[in-house]
Amino acid sequence: MELIYLNSVWVVLAAAMVLFMEGGFSLLEAGLVRTKNAVNVTMKIFVDLTVGALAFWLIGFGVMFGKDVNGFFGTTLFGHPQNITLSIDLPSTAFVLFQMGFAVACISIVSGAVAERMNFKAYILTAALICIIVYPLSGHWIWSANGWLAKLGMKDFAGSAAIHAVGGFAAFAMAKWLGPRKGRFNSDGSTNVFAPSNIPLASAGTFILWFGWFAFNTGSTLDASNKAFASIAINTMLAGASGGTAALFMTMKKFGKADPSMMINGVLSGLVAITAGCAFVSQWSAIIIGIISGIIVIYATLLVDYLKVDDPVGAVAVHGFNGVFGTIAVGLFDQSHGLFTSGDFSLIKIQLLGAAAVVIWGLICGSFMAFVCEKTVGLRATEREEEEGLDMSFHGIPAYNELERFADLPASLYNFEESTGITLAPSGGKKVSRDAV
Amino acid sequence: MELIYLNSVWVVLAAAMVLFMEGGFSLLEAGLVRTKNAVNVTMKIFVDLTVGALAFWLIGFGVMFGKDVNGFFGTTLFGHPQNITLSIDLPSTAFVLFQMGFAVACISIVSGAVAERMNFKAYILTAALICIIVYPLSGHWIWSANGWLAKLGMKDFAGSAAIHAVGGFAAFAMAKWLGPRKGRFNSDGSTNVFAPSNIPLASAGTFILWFGWFAFNTGSTLDASNKAFASIAINTMLAGASGGTAALFMTMKKFGKADPSMMINGVLSGLVAITAGCAFVSQWSAIIIGIISGIIVIYATLLVDYLKVDDPVGAVAVHGFNGVFGTIAVGLFDQSHGLFTSGDFSLIKIQLLGAAAVVIWGLICGSFMAFVCEKTVGLRATEREEEEGLDMSFHGIPAYNELERFADLPASLYNFEESTGITLAPSGGKKVSRDAV
Amino acid sequence: MELIYLNSVWVVLAAAMVLFMEGGFSLLEAGLVRTKNAVNVTMKIFVDLTVGALAFWLIGFGVMFGKDVNGFFGTTLFGHPQNITLSIDLPSTAFVLFQMGFAVACISIVSGAVAERMNFKAYILTAALICIIVYPLSGHWIWSANGWLAKLGMKDFAGSAAIHAVGGFAAFAMAKWLGPRKGRFNSDGSTNVFAPSNIPLASAGTFILWFGWFAFNTGSTLDASNKAFASIAINTMLAGASGGTAALFMTMKKFGKADPSMMINGVLSGLVAITAGCAFVSQWSAIIIGIISGIIVIYATLLVDYLKVDDPVGAVAVHGFNGVFGTIAVGLFDQSHGLFTSGDFSLIKIQLLGAAAVVIWGLICGSFMAFVCEKTVGLRATEREEEEGLDMSFHGIPAYNELERFADLPASLYNFEESTGITLAPSGGKKVSRDAV
Repeated sequence: MELIYLNSVWVVLAAAMVLFMEGGFSLLEAGLVRTKNAVNVTMKIFVDLTVGALAFWLIGFGVMFGKDVNGFFGTTLFGHPQNITLSIDLPSTAFVLFQMGFAVACISIVSGAVAERMNFKAYILTAALICIIVYPLSGHWIWSANGWLAKLGMKDFAGSAAIHAVGGFAAFAMAKWLGPRKGRFNSDGSTNVFAPSNIPLASAGTFILWFGWFAFNTGSTLDASNKAFASIAINTMLAGASGGTAALFMTMKKFGKADPSMMINGVLSGLVAITAGCAFVSQWSAIIIGIISGIIVIYATLLVDYLKVDDPVGAVAVHGFNGVFGTIAVGLFDQSHGLFTSGDFSLIKIQLLGAAAVVIWGLICGSFMAFVCEKTVGLRATEREEEEGLDMSFHGIPAYNELERFADLPASLYNFEESTGITLAPSGGKKVSRDAV
Repeated sequence: MELIYLNSVWVVLAAAMVLFMEGGFSLLEAGLVRTKNAVNVTMKIFVDLTVGALAFWLIGFGVMFGKDVNGFFGTTLFGHPQNITLSIDLPSTAFVLFQMGFAVACISIVSGAVAERMNFKAYILTAALICIIVYPLSGHWIWSANGWLAKLGMKDFAGSAAIHAVGGFAAFAMAKWLGPRKGRFNSDGSTNVFAPSNIPLASAGTFILWFGWFAFNTGSTLDASNKAFASIAINTMLAGASGGTAALFMTMKKFGKADPSMMINGVLSGLVAITAGCAFVSQWSAIIIGIISGIIVIYATLLVDYLKVDDPVGAVAVHGFNGVFGTIAVGLFDQSHGLFTSGDFSLIKIQLLGAAAVVIWGLICGSFMAFVCEKTVGLRATEREEEEGLDMSFHGIPAYNELERFADLPASLYNFEESTGITLAPSGGKKVSRDAV
Repeated sequence: MELIYLNSVWVVLAAAMVLFMEGGFSLLEAGLVRTKNAVNVTMKIFVDLTVGALAFWLIGFGVMFGKDVNGFFGTTLFGHPQNITLSIDLPSTAFVLFQMGFAVACISIVSGAVAERMNFKAYILTAALICIIVYPLSGHWIWSANGWLAKLGMKDFAGSAAIHAVGGFAAFAMAKWLGPRKGRFNSDGSTNVFAPSNIPLASAGTFILWFGWFAFNTGSTLDASNKAFASIAINTMLAGASGGTAALFMTMKKFGKADPSMMINGVLSGLVAITAGCAFVSQWSAIIIGIISGIIVIYATLLVDYLKVDDPVGAVAVHGFNGVFGTIAVGLFDQSHGLFTSGDFSLIKIQLLGAAAVVIWGLICGSFMAFVCEKTVGLRATEREEEEGLDMSFHGIPAYNELERFADLPASLYNFEESTGITLAPSGGKKVSRDAV
């Protein structure tokens, strides 16, 4: 039997699992925001998986993996990404599909940070822009054979820098430009906390993300015969577990309560931080990286708050700060060239440079996208839309109707004649009334 | 290493993912119906996976893949489906398990359309009948080597016709015979809209279905060495994304709101429509098929409403109409014999014939099952049961007890002596009282 | 291509699916307990996956698979489990990861039975102890090559005894020592029923568990070339389906309602019961085992209630009783040495001995852990904590905030200066106030 058959199965399956992580993002964000915006965050994830995925397939893939120009971007493969020539035993379509999962993940990082006050049309535009240019360009630097960071020898196995740090700092910039949710920060410098609306859903989302992360990291081998395959998987597990453990014990010690949001973000931080180094570090290093990431996320959350940037789900702390930490950690713990393991300074310097480059790129892109949105469809929801909740404002329906209330759905949506202009018959639907059950 | 080992792993895993789609159906339907019927839809999915799966294993598999009689049905393998002889490198039990997933999916299509007013016992009977005769018979025509449609050359790779169209039109007939939910249509021809009860759950269900669909379509190769393997996966992704994109933009343009139900059904429609052709069409064709399916679902939903057939989750529009469209689309876009790609009329004629055959078969079966239920256990819940909600009527418990109310559980359920007739001890449980916490 | 590549992919993936079962446990338990304790059960699952997983990796694995001492326990591999030498084509890290999934599953069985009244710190201690000594020790007896039960010839393919029975009876002992939830049993011998808080979530959890179980059982081959591979999978499906069917029809017949909790526990019972024998019994035997398990769970639930042991989710009935039954069932239905299939008494005697050994071990451990917790951090939540709900008491946040109420979060959690001791700037966050939106 040929290896390519196993690789096809494996990478297609890994892609499916990475794409399924969007279900995790949806539940996590729907659980962490306020009820009145839970539909909206879910719809944004759908936008990622539809508009975003198509935009990447159509254009972004070419920017990332097309014929290189000076190590900065690609210029071919638009509209037919499957024409890429791979030097590994893998059908090109499997590779394209897996990369679509990565691009979509990068947007979903942003979606959390801008939750609860962004104009929905602006989000659609943002999702497209991230998949067309933001993720692909820095992705090209790191993962295309001729990218300038790749040539310097930067190591980012599954994307702590290429996906998480870029997404996290683009999210930071957009959240900054968007401004905080109404009532989040007081004029006297104090902060209001909006409680998450649904912890069991947020937890379920986290478990789905964790599940998908095994595919995210081991799938990045693109090759089942990679000797590090199983090590990558166990490092992923150990770092997630350590990140969660550290955040758990810290919140218990510092605040007297075991905080669910911090537990969740501690686990995710461990997973983000090991993403760059999962194939390069030892299991003990994975544990240490996880523990540090679980501490970082708590202070980073406080810091983002202190900077008066409103990030409803902690995406900047999880993906931005720990994406950077994970990238640097490779330079410290890499089994052959890490500073701590070999005393060698060469790799850590490249990792620092790479981390700085993607942070700057993320900040520029986030600001640029905010500017484009502002000048076109409008960046922020109106005060009235925000007050009412984005669910009713943009989607005409609340997240939960457990008291059997009726949503204020657009009447025409359910009237065939009115919406199509076709008169079907005299007895046809004429109007939509809503009465209580 | 032998190919059969990889195929065993792959098909078993694909079967597990297809069976996991039931979790998706459960969340999708529980989210789209009213709260008072959310337990009931979930229980119906459990019936599909238990009673339905066993009925298919015991009888249906033999009807579908047993020794052929005139191209119409099979007559062997009852009670020991694993005795089938396959001409591929795959253990027969893996094939049986995968087919069980397909049969169960076919029932779950029906479960959505009949939600909120069907007698639970009638549903159990329906689930068994679909797995024993409805799905297997037309499945035999299309997928058994000697089936009459198979011999004509009909192409239905993973079941747009064999599963979705049959299920969708059986659902239509049953929903018609059942009649609409109380209060759904007014005497003046207008329509009342019942808002979905839980959008985050419905979305989560959709993400699970999308995840499982990768296995549904690529698993249908039954062989990891199939050259189209990765193409099938990316076509699945592209069509789902396009269907969702089309439905999103249409609802935004036509109704001014980005409607979550239509977004969900747009994605599912793209997935349904590509199911027949995923192995045969190009990626651009997959996108076009997806876009068309996303438009079809909106008009089909309106049409079903106009016909005064009440389909609470849009199953007929998604699975019925787009199952038919997907079947026909193979005749248009097939890379070797499609009308648009080759100018050849031969395949499209067979696809049209096949689509018509399964639609008629679905309508007959839906009507027949409604008749059988009506004459035996009773088809529809009583007015009082419907008013109270099927959850309390059939299952004695509400879906959500977030206000710490107690369900009106049958007292005897928790009393050992009373229910078993065994007197255990004088201090034994005597009665069940319920007090507020 | 070498077999080890396929085995690596398969076992890593199976491990990811088994670990994903924790998401299933979380939703199942969050759905079955009362709303005021739903966050707490979820946090306990996070503890399993973090503290528990690390404890097993660090110590438990060595107790289970380290160098054997008299067939009772292992003494090496602490802190570097990957140093184990396997006699199969599999990287040792993949094996370690898969075993971590098993250890974590064993704790999660206990978490359900002790829900709604256990001190959170006591649970953390319990999770660590189960992973360090409880599961590994009896696991060593059964699954280590030199374990005393293994040498006798005990057959427990994927752990009906080694995981489920041990976990189930440890859960029984702990629930007994903990005492019932306040108000559960009345002084006149009657029982109060606390209705589950969220049935759709509990169902979703069950579907995730079912999905993961395919990996739990077929993954236990550790080798894709195992001839029984596909049979294991279909046996798993058939037993789950039969267990659910039996419980469904029994509750309908005995109590007049199709009870969701019993349907769920019927399915899970079938899955538990087939876990020991999935590789050894025929498909018809799997169905019979499933049916019996679905009956056992109903009577076992009543019996546990009768014994005045409070098990909020039915974990003892599902995992304990059916774990024992599944272990014994191998002795009855094993295709080569089962009593019913071959008339041979030798195997059933060993299975009975093994079942008895793990039940006693589970009971001792549960009591021991309760004692340790009682003497250190305190076993049970205070009356006030229990009354208020463990969510607010231990985690400072309710599960659902759908009415937009604010949680009583610890103020300092969101104040950078106060919690870090670092003064950032005069304009820094000073206090946290909470106002209504």
